[in-house]
Parts: sequence; structure tokens; C-alpha cells
Amino acid sequence: MARLISVAGARGPAYGDAVADGGFRVAVVGATGLVGQTQLGVLEQRGFPVAELVPLASQRSAGQYVRFRGEQIAVREARPDAFDGLDLVFFAATGDLSASLAPEAVARGAVVIDKSNTWRMDPQVPLVVPEINAAAVDRHAGILACPNCTTIGMVMALEPVRRVAGIRSVVATTLQSPSGAGKDGAEELARQAEAAAAGRPITPSAFPTQIYDNVIPLCERFADGPGGYSTEELKLLRETRKIFDDDTVDVAMTCVRVPVAVGHSCSLLVETERLISVAQARQAIAEFPGVRLVDDPATNTFPTPQDVAGTDDVLVGRVRQDLNSERLWLWSVVDNLRKGAATNAVQIAETLIAREVLKSG
Amino acid sequence: MARLISVAGARGPAYGDAVADGGFRVAVVGATGLVGQTQLGVLEQRGFPVAELVPLASQRSAGQYVRFRGEQIAVREARPDAFDGLDLVFFAATGDLSASLAPEAVARGAVVIDKSNTWRMDPQVPLVVPEINAAAVDRHAGILACPNCTTIGMVMALEPVRRVAGIRSVVATTLQSPSGAGKDGAEELARQAEAAAAGRPITPSAFPTQIYDNVIPLCERFADGPGGYSTEELKLLRETRKIFDDDTVDVAMTCVRVPVAVGHSCSLLVETERLISVAQARQAIAEFPGVRLVDDPATNTFPTPQDVAGTDDVLVGRVRQDLNSERLWLWSVVDNLRKGAATNAVQIAETLIAREVLKSG
Repeated sequence: MARLISVAGARGPAYGDAVADGGFRVAVVGATGLVGQTQLGVLEQRGFPVAELVPLASQRSAGQYVRFRGEQIAVREARPDAFDGLDLVFFAATGDLSASLAPEAVARGAVVIDKSNTWRMDPQVPLVVPEINAAAVDRHAGILACPNCTTIGMVMALEPVRRVAGIRSVVATTLQSPSGAGKDGAEELARQAEAAAAGRPITPSAFPTQIYDNVIPLCERFADGPGGYSTEELKLLRETRKIFDDDTVDVAMTCVRVPVAVGHSCSLLVETERLISVAQARQAIAEFPGVRLVDDPATNTFPTPQDVAGTDDVLVGRVRQDLNSERLWLWSVVDNLRKGAATNAVQIAETLIAREVLKSG
Repeated sequence: MARLISVAGARGPAYGDAVADGGFRVAVVGATGLVGQTQLGVLEQRGFPVAELVPLASQRSAGQYVRFRGEQIAVREARPDAFDGLDLVFFAATGDLSASLAPEAVARGAVVIDKSNTWRMDPQVPLVVPEINAAAVDRHAGILACPNCTTIGMVMALEPVRRVAGIRSVVATTLQSPSGAGKDGAEELARQAEAAAAGRPITPSAFPTQIYDNVIPLCERFADGPGGYSTEELKLLRETRKIFDDDTVDVAMTCVRVPVAVGHSCSLLVETERLISVAQARQAIAEFPGVRLVDDPATNTFPTPQDVAGTDDVLVGRVRQDLNSERLWLWSVVDNLRKGAATNAVQIAETLIAREVLKSG
């Protein structure tokens, strides 16, 4: 019987009993992708109790090898029968693959933690950021969803303030890494940087226009309908309301890609329900698990993507009051591949174990 | 006698009489700098009636040569006696140089158009974006000021909406090129890109941390005092109020550097005084001189820094209504060296001529 015996901060708990009996049979779907690769690293770094690891991917990537705990493991094709006998399946793949295969995994007895957009707004599916709404995992019906990488960075920065003062509205402009669009996006930036350095022409492919030496005020794609919003922007509102379990919170947003390999930044103007001073906000942020206050104008201290890449905390700085109102400005940065995706997914699994919703054996 | 005989749109007027009698004796202070170099190009491209061009710079750069209308001209040291006999002096230099030398140029009979921060908030000094407040030039007392490059891009995007519906408040997040900090900033980005391509370590110098492959939520420096605002952010509020001649307009802002060689972008949420539809806003933007509407979600059309670099129009797109209010989102991009600086300064001079405030001979 796997059981979480203690939680050692946000850095990964100790899984005494689970490790003792070998832990869980775990699959990662999309194991060769950017988030999937990060997922394997996070499982290993946090000592997640994996008895057996099954890397899965679409037919195109099956047959490749991935590394886990020093071993090379062959990637198998993600087909329904690949889920036989598994306890836990992390989907870090396309929405199409999640749509068709997550129910197959659940039908075979596994719990699914999905990183795609497919299941997030399904009323049967908890949308979880464990530091914020851990108890939501109790109500799962087989599938649990991980929010969008941008949403996670934003709500983690907002939650400390929300707990103290409530949140009425947020105006957000995001500055997002192309790696949020997966391997294609990350490789496009790297390829364009190489082309620029070599004086070669730049031909956009993953994005509608050049991202190197540019910013693109469109993330993902324009949503259908006349509103002029991107699908990414709409997620930010809908997911935030579901995570906060508050359909009155107002999020106004523009999402922008910037030429940064890793890290999503958010510029946030926050209207609270009750008055909160800058000092109170700073203290709440500094004390919140998984969030780190990086904020000291006197020493030019503020968080940037370079500071957050490869780490799990959401960094928050530039905390200050609006010049003409009681609103608060915040600036947050998250590693979109780790806390924005892989780490949050593993934390959801850890929460399932800690709350005794998931047991091995 | 120089006289502007007709104005041909925003692309530079025809200066018939002025050219006929040779035009103005013009100095550019800071002629070897990034804005100064652009200034020389803009004067030439617009056919500004220059009878004699005197390039000036600090002692350090004196003796270098600059190119104007195909000629190499030696740069002289900017000292008080260098202004003898001049009609018009463009300052594209440091604030210190403007502070000490602009009054010297005025005392010798020249009109000064200054690009630095030194004189902008002086009540005696008009702060001018000609498409917005051309008549302000009539009240000058020798010095006229060009707004900050970020302010110009923002107010140009706002003005068409303001004329139709008034503006109560703006929430702005800016994404600014390092070239807004001058040659040092531009060279820092280029040098760091080269270092990254060669696998060499990156050492920040012009900015407090790495700008390549990063974004920095600090433009210029933190202002004195406890507010936590940058000097750049404070300019955005103060200059906008002066240009709009409206001390009630509220601008809330965060200013960020992004790794883009040229082009300042603004993400703007605008609360108008009177209701305006998206269609009305689009039409107003499309019809406003010096602004170009670049906005069609159906064809992935929106403006980016790559689209604006080397041009004089401010590009505006992503025009849409907030999901939960009547507010409007806009996204603007300006070439910070041209309309954000050099072109606007030349347009101020053209406005002086057109309004017969400045006459040659």
C-alpha cells in the first residue's frame, strides 16, 4: 500500500511506504515531447514512487528511447491496450490524443492527469493547482486536469493576495515563451536565432510570423467568432474562474509571445475586494508555498524568465500600488514547462496520494 | 523667407519657398548617437529644408564624421559658441547636455527641439506630438520637447479613440526595445546575441540583468521614493496628461524591456468616457493621420515590431472589447527611433514652419 507519510515543502514529499512496496505503475503519454521529457525529469527529481515507467507516444515517435533513472526505455505507441495494468497516466500530449485515449486509460482502471486543454472545463474533471485547490482532487471521476501554463503562473501569483483580500478583477498582459507551444515552438525560436546569427533569411513555420527579434500578440490561434480573442486568452478567464471556484472574478487579458526559451511572465493589475497594503501583499506572497517574493527596487531586484528557468517556484515582484487607485500591480514569472506543466501534474498526483484518493497495490 | 507651402500627409510636406532660398541652418546635437543618426536620415528622407547642417556631439565623439545628403561632415564639439548663427537645433543627446546647452542655443537665437527628458514637464515648454497637439507649438519660448518614445506610441494609438469617445483611463503594459536606451542598449542586445550564438557567457552591462533570451520588468531605473515605479513608468502618466492637456486621465502602467532590436509595443486596456463600438474604434484608428490599422483575426493580421521597424506610422491592432466590460483593448507598435524620436522631432519643426512660428532668413 502506497501512502504519503510526510510532505517536505514544495520540493517533493517523502513517499516512505510507497517506495517500500515499489510504488505505482506510471505511464507518460507524449514522453518524447517537451513537457513529457520534463515530466520524466520531475518524477525522478521528486523521487515519485514509480514502480514501473511506461513511456508512450503517438505512432510517429514510438520506438524512440527515453531516459529515466539512468535507464533507456523504449517508447511504445499510445494505444488503448497500452494502459492495461497501470495506476497512473500522465498525458503530456496533443488534445486529440487525450480526447481519444484518456477515457480508455480510465476504463482500464488508471487515474489520468491530463495537461491538454481537452478536459479542463468538463464539470466532471477537477482543474487543479495543488497549492490553491487541493481538495478538488477528491471529486475526480478518473480524469484530473492541469491548467494552462500561463494560467498556473498567474493564479499562483494571485492566490496569496486573494486569500488575504479577495480578488474582484485582474488586467493581465502575458509575455510567453514559444516553448509553451511545445517542441515546434521552442525549435522555431532556436532555428530563427541560428539563422539570424548566420545572416540567413528567417522563414516562420510554427508561428504566423517571425518570433526571433520580435513579439507576437497572438498565442495559440484566434478563437472562432467575432470577439477577436485568442484561444489562449479565453483559457485565462475560464480556467481562473474554475480554479478559484468564483464565476464573478473578472480577468481581462492580452497574451503575447516573446523570444525567450523558457518562462512565461505576467503583468497583472489586481483589484481586490478588501483593502490590502503593499506590505501586506508582499508578506502574503513571501509566505505562500510555491511562490517566492523577488522584489527590492533598492537593489534592482525583480524576477525574470532567466531566474525561473529550471525551477519550480513562481517568482513575484514589482509589487506596488497603482498611482491613482487602490489596485495592486504584480509581475510574475513561471517556468512554463515545470510548474506551468510537468511539476504541477506531478503535484496533482502527490495530492491524490496525500489525500488517500490514490493508493497503489 | 522659408515658408511651408503644402502638407502632403504624414510622409513629409513640400517646402517650396524654403528650398528655394536654401532653408534653415540646422544643428543636430548627439549626431553620432542612435537617435541622432536616425534624425539625419529623417531630415534627408523628408526633404527638410536644410541650408546648412552642423553635426554636434559631446567632446568624446567630436572629430568623427557623419553622412548627410551624400556628404561626409565632421562632427564638432557641442559648446555654446557652436550655436552661433543657427535657426534650429535638434537635441538628440543626454539630458545633461540638453540641460546645459539648450538655453545657450536659445540665447543665440535658435529654436530648440529636444528629445531628452530634461524639459518635457517644464510649463514653458510645449510637449508635442504634431498629429495630436500641433497648436501647442505656438506657445513656445525657445525650447520644444519631444515626448518619450513609449509615450508617443501609446498616445498616437489612443488619440483616434479619444477624439471620438474621450478617454477616462488606460492600463498599459509596454514591451520595449533596448534601443530605447540608446546605442549602449542596442549594442548590449546585439553583443549578447552574438555571445549566445558562440556559446560564450553573457555579462550584463547596460541593463541590470541579461536582456537576450529574457525580458526585464524595469525600463530606465527605479525612481527615488518608496512607490516602486521606474522613471520610465512615471513619464508615461505625466507626459500623457500634458499632451492630452487633461490632468484627469488615469494611466496605470508597467514598462518591460524585451529582446527586440527596434520597436516598442503597448498592450492597452482603455476606458472611454462615451460608449464606442469596436467598429467605430477601428474606423477612427484607420482614418487618423500617422496611424495605420493592422487588424484582421481572420487572416492572422496584427502588428509586430518587425512590421514597424524603419517606418513612421504607429501600427494598431487587436482592437476588441473587454469580455466583461465596455472597455477596449488595443495593441500598438512604434519604431521607437523614428516616430518615437527622430521623425516626431522633425515633424515638430515642420509644424513650426507650417504654423509660421519658424521662418528662415
